[in-house]
Amino acid sequence: MQRVTNCILTKNDQVLMLKKPSRGWWVAPGGKMELRESIVESVTREFKEETGISINHPQLRGIFTIVIEDQGKVINEWMMFTFQATNGSGTMLPQSPEGELAWKSVEEISQLPMAVGDYQIFEHVLHKNGLIYGTFTYNGNLDLLSYRLEAEGEPIKQFKV
Amino acid sequence: MQRVTNCILTKNDQVLMLKKPSRGWWVAPGGKMELRESIVESVTREFKEETGISINHPQLRGIFTIVIEDQGKVINEWMMFTFQATNGSGTMLPQSPEGELAWKSVEEISQLPMAVGDYQIFEHVLHKNGLIYGTFTYNGNLDLLSYRLEAEGEPIKQFKV
Repeated sequence: MQRVTNCILTKNDQVLMLKKPSRGWWVAPGGKMELRESIVESVTREFKEETGISINHPQLRGIFTIVIEDQGKVINEWMMFTFQATNGSGTMLPQSPEGELAWKSVEEISQLPMAVGDYQIFEHVLHKNGLIYGTFTYNGNLDLLSYRLEAEGEPIKQFKV
Repeated sequence: MQRVTNCILTKNDQVLMLKKPSRGWWVAPGGKMELRESIVESVTREFKEETGISINHPQLRGIFTIVIEDQGKVINEWMMFTFQATNGSGTMLPQSPEGELAWKSVEEISQLPMAVGDYQIFEHVLHKNGLIYGTFTYNGNLDLLSYRLEAEGEPIKQFKV
């Protein structure tokens, strides 16, 4: 099972975003965990590889189960661990190996093209406190079919096509 | 990849523990995540199945990578998500399907037979705040070979045989 860690680095109301060439969708930089890594080791390594920046004290903000289904059957399932950091050191790469890097304003995030479920994740991490847990279900074309999100002290949010 | 969730339920300086029949080791009740579950759905369901008790507002306290290796090679790797709850409702099962249930005092925990790495987990959850991340490496006989633990605001703890 694939496990992905990523980090939303925020500085002065700006967020460091990465535009993946495949679909032109924006994501928080990150990538796949390697064997023997803890999630915090993974996110630190991946963020550095993709951006050049070493994040300091990343805080876990979300843990998600991502389901890809076809005609009601699970064809893939993976986990995503989303951190937030407000501090990083080092120089940003002029070009990421994974796509285009850009600082985007917090207000702009909800206008960027991205996986539909990711708007919920940015909304929580940028505007709320604490951890959020949930499951996002997509079809093979990455159309969002449903989600169920639970954050501490908030009502459960659910969506279904 | 296997994913396990468990919960340390504490009440009046007592912890609800489960003694697994295989080795006679004590654990925090929990079990394997099912497809499509979030980690909080999983821990709530598993704790109820094993103890009869519905936990309220479980808080995530630790995320661990568990590596089983043989002669330096990874032969299995799984993830464990440890929650803490201080509140539960419902009636405790007279007998758990998974072993013997008992309330143990917080002071007693470090004296109970258990996987060696678990002492570190209970120590953090029962006596410290915030999240802890890390990797535990065992051999096939479940002898602890090494660990590396990172908790917010604390120095990294490492051990190697």
